[in-house]
Amino acid sequence: MSRYFTEKYASLTPYTPGEQPKDMQYVKLNTNESPFPPSPGVEKAVMEQCGRLQLYSDPESTALRTKLAEIYGVKPSQVIAVNGSDEVLNFAFMAFADEIAFPDITYGFYPVFAQLNGIPYEQIPLKADFSIDPDDYVNLNKTIVIANPNAPTGLCLSLGQIEKIVRSNPDHVVIIDEAYVDFGGESAVQLVSKYDNLLVTMTFSKSRSMAGARLGFGIGSEDLIADLNTIRYSTNPYNVNRMTEFAGCAALVENDYYMANCRVIMENREWTTGQLQALGFDVLPSMANFVFAKTERIDGGKLYVELKKRGILVRHFTKERIKDYNRITIGTMEQMQALIGAIKDILEEQTL
Amino acid sequence: MSRYFTEKYASLTPYTPGEQPKDMQYVKLNTNESPFPPSPGVEKAVMEQCGRLQLYSDPESTALRTKLAEIYGVKPSQVIAVNGSDEVLNFAFMAFADEIAFPDITYGFYPVFAQLNGIPYEQIPLKADFSIDPDDYVNLNKTIVIANPNAPTGLCLSLGQIEKIVRSNPDHVVIIDEAYVDFGGESAVQLVSKYDNLLVTMTFSKSRSMAGARLGFGIGSEDLIADLNTIRYSTNPYNVNRMTEFAGCAALVENDYYMANCRVIMENREWTTGQLQALGFDVLPSMANFVFAKTERIDGGKLYVELKKRGILVRHFTKERIKDYNRITIGTMEQMQALIGAIKDILEEQTL
Repeated sequence: MSRYFTEKYASLTPYTPGEQPKDMQYVKLNTNESPFPPSPGVEKAVMEQCGRLQLYSDPESTALRTKLAEIYGVKPSQVIAVNGSDEVLNFAFMAFADEIAFPDITYGFYPVFAQLNGIPYEQIPLKADFSIDPDDYVNLNKTIVIANPNAPTGLCLSLGQIEKIVRSNPDHVVIIDEAYVDFGGESAVQLVSKYDNLLVTMTFSKSRSMAGARLGFGIGSEDLIADLNTIRYSTNPYNVNRMTEFAGCAALVENDYYMANCRVIMENREWTTGQLQALGFDVLPSMANFVFAKTERIDGGKLYVELKKRGILVRHFTKERIKDYNRITIGTMEQMQALIGAIKDILEEQTL
Repeated sequence: MSRYFTEKYASLTPYTPGEQPKDMQYVKLNTNESPFPPSPGVEKAVMEQCGRLQLYSDPESTALRTKLAEIYGVKPSQVIAVNGSDEVLNFAFMAFADEIAFPDITYGFYPVFAQLNGIPYEQIPLKADFSIDPDDYVNLNKTIVIANPNAPTGLCLSLGQIEKIVRSNPDHVVIIDEAYVDFGGESAVQLVSKYDNLLVTMTFSKSRSMAGARLGFGIGSEDLIADLNTIRYSTNPYNVNRMTEFAGCAALVENDYYMANCRVIMENREWTTGQLQALGFDVLPSMANFVFAKTERIDGGKLYVELKKRGILVRHFTKERIKDYNRITIGTMEQMQALIGAIKDILEEQTL
């Protein structure tokens, strides 16, 4: 830290992204990326923008927002496009939270956004089975953010449960972070016209194979979106670059490709879950593109290390309540077979 | 504004980007973009990344920072890469400013960043000739941000004048915003090794023809850069997308192309200045890719409107002190000839 760093942020603990080691080629199952490349139209769209990079991107991302509005059945003025959904989450913390609540086990960035913005936060414990008890959030009288499906558990609330939370907190914004919704969850976007305190955030990073292009969006009432734009125009109005905006448009045109990929991931998830269970793992019933699993046969941290030695990266968290677990991204069948093979080897060595 | 918007930001006046009307094709001289497309290697680099967009970008932008460090003679750990230089400016306001000073006429985003972050700010009047008096900033005992060359004036401080300001404020960070430095200014990067309170910010948006790709960077001491990374990892760690990172690398390899373009812009600037002067304009001696000009023959606001009617966009500011002026981006010779032709027509009509 330099001697110039403001006191306000001196105790800030930044977010730790998943590791990206460069020493060798890993089977990368640690950051919930899609194993599938983007659809053919994406490359074409990017190419078209390459020759005009000298011109600023559209600060309104009009083309993209118009397409998103069509697909999600809202008005373009109810959509904000961002440089990855982390950006809209931070904007929402800034714009709407005097005090905020979220689960104790969830996306690790929520406490960071709260600390960054000096917002007091309550971490509400998940139930013993790692599920969210919606009643913990009913009439809470605080801003709320819930990842649905939740990470790193993969567990999902039903639309009815989400609605109960939103309806019972009419004086506070409820943010539903749907980064993983396309792998079996039900989107709350359909509730947006009914509740002016609901903000739904989504990303192109998972189901739409564009983590490296950085594209997220938020959907809510026109007023909520206008407030988020006040923040955006006060930080970085040209937040989405022109290649990414039009890559996003192309991906939406080829939506069937991505939805077919999601079905493959869901099939591979069921296969992987079955294999892990057969090896003695507890696997939470995931609705995301990852599974969260532990076994009494090997320590969670040790399994992570042993897999890494064998060229397979998964994500291990050291937080007490979940340190026995590993979060494993669901990739192609070949990747999952490699994972299961490696785990079998590791468990066998354990018992020698 | 929604009823959920936090009081903290209720009175925020966001930045207004230059207009981007879509009703017709304009000669666009209003946002200081380059008239030249990016170099051939940029397209190739972007293409290579297109097939792997499903993977997150490198949160460290290692490849790009390594190249920038080489070119600017610093260590990679002295460089931060950002989603357009607005981002590093905002981070620097957040990280280093308890109170901040900048000229009354300068980049319109500085007061917005200050307001956003609740930082008291002093706007120090430019001299009558619109130049910055460096003595106003000597021993100021506040964080300072100076655009050099300044916008929208185009006027430049010498390296010696910058050094005097930096040296005399050892307990505060001095931010030198060099968005326009490649058009005739002298970079303060060479002072970074000498002063640990100096942060220089630059962009690929102007001289490097990549406004639409969103790429900026900051150079300072390792400690300052580490502080900026603490903020970055607490807002948006994957801030630079993978296409843009490698487009930036390619542009640096083909640096000669961009520096040749800068020379063309500087020649066109001298030509345009001469033409405007011949028509009775006062033109500030610009070291940027724009000129700031007024004439008693026509009101500044009216000239802007009349040019727009004729398909030429320039930038007019309504702020009292500069409302007689227009800021005119320097484009190709054809564009500048169109501008001068249109101004001649407008002035002739005036006198009828």
